[in-house]
Amino acid sequence: MKLLEEKIINDAIVLPGEVLKVDSFLNHQIDTELISACASEWYEKFKDAGVTKIMTIEASGIGLACIAATYFKVPVLFAKKSRSSAPSTELHSTTVVSYTHGHTYDVVVSKKFLSPNDKVLIIDDLLANGSAMKALISLCKKAGADVVGCGVAIEKSYSGGGNEIRNMGYRVESLAKISNISSDGKIEFC
Amino acid sequence: MKLLEEKIINDAIVLPGEVLKVDSFLNHQIDTELISACASEWYEKFKDAGVTKIMTIEASGIGLACIAATYFKVPVLFAKKSRSSAPSTELHSTTVVSYTHGHTYDVVVSKKFLSPNDKVLIIDDLLANGSAMKALISLCKKAGADVVGCGVAIEKSYSGGGNEIRNMGYRVESLAKISNISSDGKIEFC
Repeated sequence: MKLLEEKIINDAIVLPGEVLKVDSFLNHQIDTELISACASEWYEKFKDAGVTKIMTIEASGIGLACIAATYFKVPVLFAKKSRSSAPSTELHSTTVVSYTHGHTYDVVVSKKFLSPNDKVLIIDDLLANGSAMKALISLCKKAGADVVGCGVAIEKSYSGGGNEIRNMGYRVESLAKISNISSDGKIEFC
Repeated sequence: MKLLEEKIINDAIVLPGEVLKVDSFLNHQIDTELISACASEWYEKFKDAGVTKIMTIEASGIGLACIAATYFKVPVLFAKKSRSSAPSTELHSTTVVSYTHGHTYDVVVSKKFLSPNDKVLIIDDLLANGSAMKALISLCKKAGADVVGCGVAIEKSYSGGGNEIRNMGYRVESLAKISNISSDGKIEFC
């Protein structure tokens, strides 16, 4: 998606260690005009998939998921980072290893909001090693819900998570796929 | 707002201690059709206020803020819960006392995304004692930005936060104002 690639070239900041900072338009300040354009792209790609629910993970995925949901006219369900380690009979739970911060945390969804009748489109802002995305897929599996696909804004292809998830049999549609960030900070797209 | 009040009557769950659970449509699963209707109401109320930015706090305010921002055609800035206690010259920071969980935490925004030229509309899902809203106002003050008002989905008027903020001179527009939750779980609106 040209618009998103241009935004990345113009506004993203590359920090040492291939860290891509997109907080001016994606995950702190949110350019809602850009996100609406992303949502429209995901709608074109998945409009015939029978989506009943859009799922994401707090916090930065929520804005994208909600704007996308206004196109699909379905509810959003966002997985919450759990503060409690006590198991609950009311929740589906799984563990995420954070790529950015290096620690692990549990994410949960209420069992009552995800059922075997659901066809779920998973939306997230960034896909690197895919740990958050895999956790969302795992929550859907536990609920018996069908994952019809994953809509991602920016995929760091060189981190491998996207292709791992494709190899698991899921459709992943990323609107900007970065193949490389060079040592002098140049961003290359697939 | 009739639609929101009906949704509260039909779908909210009252737990002991006047706890109102709205996770089926507002802060875990999100009814995006309802939220679009809320956003449209806020737009009608604030469309002449010259809003340049919508601000909220992670996580459950983000969806409402982003859908509202598509009406105003402005960016969203969401304050982040800080993991670090180290002060940063790049961030505005303030402390929130959580009404729901009883603990305190710091919230931050990048200085570069909030300026004295901004006219900010603050959006949040729930307003009880107003600690999160007051923290967002404080961050705007630190940046020299002008707060043109606060758009709230559900205000628990009996908790007093809404009127405290009105008495500070701010315009607070709540779409459903709950005056009382009786011991048998009956919800009354102002």
